[in-house]
Amino acid sequence: MPTDSALDAEATALDAADPLAAHRDAFVGAESSLVYFDGNSLGRPPRATADRLARFVTDEWGGRLIRGWDEAWMELPFVIGDRIGASTLGSAGGQTVIGDSTTVLLYKLLRAALDAQMTADANRVEIVVGRDDFPTDRYLVEGIAAERGARVVWVEVDTARGVDADLLRAVVGPRTAVVLLSHVSYRSGFLADGAGLTAIAHDAGALVLWDLCHSAGSVPVELDAWGADLAVGCTYKYLNGGPGSPAFAYVAARHQSTLTQPVQGWMGAADVFSMGPLYRPADGMRRFLSGTPPVLAMIALQDTLDLLEQAGIAAVRAKSVALTEFALRVADGILSPLGVRLASPRDPAERGGHLTLSHPSMRAVTARLWADDVIPDYRDPHGLRIGLSPLSTSFAETLAGMRAVAAAVAREG
Amino acid sequence: MPTDSALDAEATALDAADPLAAHRDAFVGAESSLVYFDGNSLGRPPRATADRLARFVTDEWGGRLIRGWDEAWMELPFVIGDRIGASTLGSAGGQTVIGDSTTVLLYKLLRAALDAQMTADANRVEIVVGRDDFPTDRYLVEGIAAERGARVVWVEVDTARGVDADLLRAVVGPRTAVVLLSHVSYRSGFLADGAGLTAIAHDAGALVLWDLCHSAGSVPVELDAWGADLAVGCTYKYLNGGPGSPAFAYVAARHQSTLTQPVQGWMGAADVFSMGPLYRPADGMRRFLSGTPPVLAMIALQDTLDLLEQAGIAAVRAKSVALTEFALRVADGILSPLGVRLASPRDPAERGGHLTLSHPSMRAVTARLWADDVIPDYRDPHGLRIGLSPLSTSFAETLAGMRAVAAAVAREG
Repeated sequence: MPTDSALDAEATALDAADPLAAHRDAFVGAESSLVYFDGNSLGRPPRATADRLARFVTDEWGGRLIRGWDEAWMELPFVIGDRIGASTLGSAGGQTVIGDSTTVLLYKLLRAALDAQMTADANRVEIVVGRDDFPTDRYLVEGIAAERGARVVWVEVDTARGVDADLLRAVVGPRTAVVLLSHVSYRSGFLADGAGLTAIAHDAGALVLWDLCHSAGSVPVELDAWGADLAVGCTYKYLNGGPGSPAFAYVAARHQSTLTQPVQGWMGAADVFSMGPLYRPADGMRRFLSGTPPVLAMIALQDTLDLLEQAGIAAVRAKSVALTEFALRVADGILSPLGVRLASPRDPAERGGHLTLSHPSMRAVTARLWADDVIPDYRDPHGLRIGLSPLSTSFAETLAGMRAVAAAVAREG
Repeated sequence: MPTDSALDAEATALDAADPLAAHRDAFVGAESSLVYFDGNSLGRPPRATADRLARFVTDEWGGRLIRGWDEAWMELPFVIGDRIGASTLGSAGGQTVIGDSTTVLLYKLLRAALDAQMTADANRVEIVVGRDDFPTDRYLVEGIAAERGARVVWVEVDTARGVDADLLRAVVGPRTAVVLLSHVSYRSGFLADGAGLTAIAHDAGALVLWDLCHSAGSVPVELDAWGADLAVGCTYKYLNGGPGSPAFAYVAARHQSTLTQPVQGWMGAADVFSMGPLYRPADGMRRFLSGTPPVLAMIALQDTLDLLEQAGIAAVRAKSVALTEFALRVADGILSPLGVRLASPRDPAERGGHLTLSHPSMRAVTARLWADDVIPDYRDPHGLRIGLSPLSTSFAETLAGMRAVAAAVAREG
């Protein structure tokens, strides 16, 4: 086990060598002693965002008023969508849009995919989803299956991992309509094989919908290269859009003229302002919109996209791996002796941007840490999630936080 | 016809006697010469909003980080919903919530109502909606009817009015499941009889869903007194929530334990953070939520609610009527001679917060007015909408705008 001062020296050296170190100062709170381990739930605000929002209110909303829609806002969901697509999703333009909440977009795309599959082949009535996936994903699948006369096929997984090739191959077949997969597991941080799982689903004739909530802005995603069909992801985690900022949806160009979604609103219609008698879906990604786009709620996103485009997702991922590897070395040194075990993959190639540490007292540990301004989050069973947002987290912060975890476990354990 | 100077004197006297005159200064742009006649599409921002958003970013999002959810944000959709309910909807607490877009909320509540009615009585398969209602309402009904095996019953209406008692009575009956009604018509400004139409629908055994988009914050609504079942409305018009701000939904307390909506997400589940294996809807209004509430997008609303609570909806409505009556007198004086006719009800008791003026050249007139910083909006066929937001519009502004309309019609006509 490294000595205390050796860990300090290592953190200092890693920060000094970090090409993204300067970006940390772009975030509110970088100067404070608070340790933030929950950027994977709600990212810190960029410092530029307060001013961006205030200027938007006064100059754009207040100055342009309704004219803002024609001048810029009608296209903003596609403009920002394309920036996310290019900077972190591996998506060519015209396939990504900012829409509703993650849940609502998942509903719309799942319905679109299932309805198309069931129409093409009445035997394709199964939706595959992981038993350990995020609740919204499971609840939605359960509800959609009930209302459409489809069937849920659960993939049973170890909570410390996620869905892999063998597990998926065992459940897909000629009855599979859609496979809903998490790229990075919210619980374990397990990083799924995007290309491999997409191919397995396709070989069975199924469509794939990727949940990218814990990937976008942290792990490179290659939707076009994987041949993915559909994806949804959230923007308030590593993309720092603010509490409840709207989600993005991706639909591969080849599906855009055939898939339709059930929430038929004016903003998805072919001619928005003709206000014609019957609904005709727009071409392209617009058909996946429903109501008036949440403009005020999406503009904050642009500050992190500015940083992400500067840094490049490869550098962000490299730092993410370095951060989790460092945290893991510290955990091995000072937490393992206290009975804390890793509930995430040990191989960084199989791991996203967070680590989950397991110990029976983690619920109490979390409360104690929060009281001491060290902010991870807790997920049943016994999981402390250490989320290390690459653009805003330093190695020194990581070390300070891990030491606080050790102290809290020692007291609570 | 009043002389020019008589109109000036009247506007000056009305502004001097207006008890809400001071509120106008609370809005960005009050000092400018621009005439804003489109507060019924996108309300002006309160001056307080820029600072409120900036402080939220730095102090709450940046300062509290993920802790903000436990401390305040989880309840914010209900807190702000109740404020809207009390100040303008005539709703007791616990029945109104801020959710998704208007379109998505209409989808969820329409589905909830239709599914419950069809389950209770397999013959109740008809959804009644006005042929001239806002496109989203019609498109949604069309889509839901198709996916649920229901049938649309269109109410044919004169574009200068809306659905009244006789029209509704003629189409409801033992097959009616749900009636979707607009309280104020987006096109004509026709103000429907809330209590009367609700009673007619109920007598036929139907549920009523009110679209309050053009009422909320301008016309008093009495959902509880009407015995209304469900309502949805938008917050970026008279409630000044900003472009694309989230909508509200109302579900009468007596229905909350029996209705369920199809977009089953974690925020609508009985125990949000238990993340249990199967979806069980929460009690109360929470079950009508789906994804993470759009917190950043809903906080701006509080500035107009502050003003509205101070002023009282009765005073707001009184000013709204005074504004449209004044605009109508000016129109009768200087626009009628140019062939412009009123496409809204003449009786203020049948009219909401906007007037629609019709003339074959109105599309071109609108473009010319916009170029001159006079901002109404245009709706087919030939309709110029004069939206007079009571808290932010003066009589002098109204007069200046109506004169500009007359000049533009004279040039284009």
